[in-house]
Amino acid sequence: MTDSIGRLSIVGFGLIGASLAASLKRAGFSGEIVAVTRSDASAQQALEQGLVDHAVADIASGINEADIVLLAVPMLAMRTVMKDIAPVLSPRTVLTDAGSVKQSFIEDARAVFGSLRNIVPGHPIAGRELSGMAAADDKLYQGRRVLLTPTEETDAAAIARVSALWTLAGASVECLQAAHHDRVLAATSHLPHVLAFTMVDTLATQQEVEEIFRYAAGGFRDFTRIASSDPVMWRDICLTNREAVLASMDAFGEHLQLLRTAIDTSDGAAIESILQRARDARDAYSAE
Amino acid sequence: MTDSIGRLSIVGFGLIGASLAASLKRAGFSGEIVAVTRSDASAQQALEQGLVDHAVADIASGINEADIVLLAVPMLAMRTVMKDIAPVLSPRTVLTDAGSVKQSFIEDARAVFGSLRNIVPGHPIAGRELSGMAAADDKLYQGRRVLLTPTEETDAAAIARVSALWTLAGASVECLQAAHHDRVLAATSHLPHVLAFTMVDTLATQQEVEEIFRYAAGGFRDFTRIASSDPVMWRDICLTNREAVLASMDAFGEHLQLLRTAIDTSDGAAIESILQRARDARDAYSAE
Repeated sequence: MTDSIGRLSIVGFGLIGASLAASLKRAGFSGEIVAVTRSDASAQQALEQGLVDHAVADIASGINEADIVLLAVPMLAMRTVMKDIAPVLSPRTVLTDAGSVKQSFIEDARAVFGSLRNIVPGHPIAGRELSGMAAADDKLYQGRRVLLTPTEETDAAAIARVSALWTLAGASVECLQAAHHDRVLAATSHLPHVLAFTMVDTLATQQEVEEIFRYAAGGFRDFTRIASSDPVMWRDICLTNREAVLASMDAFGEHLQLLRTAIDTSDGAAIESILQRARDARDAYSAE
Repeated sequence: MTDSIGRLSIVGFGLIGASLAASLKRAGFSGEIVAVTRSDASAQQALEQGLVDHAVADIASGINEADIVLLAVPMLAMRTVMKDIAPVLSPRTVLTDAGSVKQSFIEDARAVFGSLRNIVPGHPIAGRELSGMAAADDKLYQGRRVLLTPTEETDAAAIARVSALWTLAGASVECLQAAHHDRVLAATSHLPHVLAFTMVDTLATQQEVEEIFRYAAGGFRDFTRIASSDPVMWRDICLTNREAVLASMDAFGEHLQLLRTAIDTSDGAAIESILQRARDARDAYSAE
């Protein structure tokens, strides 16, 4: 299936794009990979890294003759990039992305292209707090899920091509509806990030900030690690998946208030019941 | 210094106590270690594990002739255990503990014993979500901190003995005031646990709970791991460090509300500024 992909252009060559290039090369991908970067210096760096066959800062030449174009840029940059490529995008090129919010991507694509026939919205559930092409990891997608949210208009062959690409990179591909994706990811990914950012921000303003971080144990470090994620990427996720993120935050706020009341009234039975329910749920649903 | 410790009795032989025994044995501790368990069956299990020299379910005989008695039980069980040992505790025995809240331990000790001369409140900043003696880890305290919160009444020699014990187990020992400890730990440990428990509890009640956990990536698993911690232990921490925990929750709630408002009003600059501040703080204060 990937034999039919002669050229893959990756627009936005950071951790996600560079890791895809690395994973594909490792798996023996036979096509050409082009990195489209923001600057000539980055293009030079991408070439020197040896993960791509070509690298350019000029988007029009970068997507020229591509069979698949993957957009790996922050959510709010998607529409601008689409406008840049629209005049030169071949009708046979499949456009996909690696963004964390899918309804927003679909709205952008509809606004810019009209037809969604060759548009395959995608989201690899993988990432690290590190960013940039230097953090490229050729095993980043191994055993991870990639969620595709094609619309009814999307061409089956286009879906199959994108799916084959991610499968070659080591991921397992699933399809679901964009609205459903955005709701589930708000809970499973966006809410935890919002909470981790908020907790670190809260602690950073406490008088004892240095001791707080000094006396932090393992759980705390795990908890706060995701607060080192890219602020622009996460700002865009909050803005483009606004309603689902707010709904998740509000559900969390209600549950936090329940626990707060139980603690405030020294209701040990209520506290224990909440903690036990959470522990049971985690143990029931989590693999490890 | 540990040469003067002929016998250490550990009351409550779970992960913390058994890991201390394992660490001391590994380091060549020359004294005897006695495990005081809740049942004869557990005593038998402790003996078979080979980490202790004696194991009994009878607390009076268990602490007999001990140079140091370490209480490693949930916070709300401390006073009951103290009352059990008070009639038989030798005036020369040093009493210490491994509890997460220090003012509560001191209040219990003062109420039961009157004098705090031989009382050394302690808190090893180490732990895992696993519990029970079977999870014993002879490297659990390696490079970790143990915080001691002696009062002005505490005998210097008693502090030195407890300090030597933890040092031999691989930890570095620091002293600070109990109230200060409780405030800092509320932020650095109790708040993250409360948030992790609450988040899992929130997600467990969502309609898409199975998918939420299925599509969870690394950051989520790190974040929720601590929600598998022992509910009774954490109920007791919430109750005994109630005011500091509530203050931390309220500070968090205010910061969450700031971010919620920024998202609700689509104020990208405000969102980015909060996320950037959090990231800067984490990068500045965290070692890794």
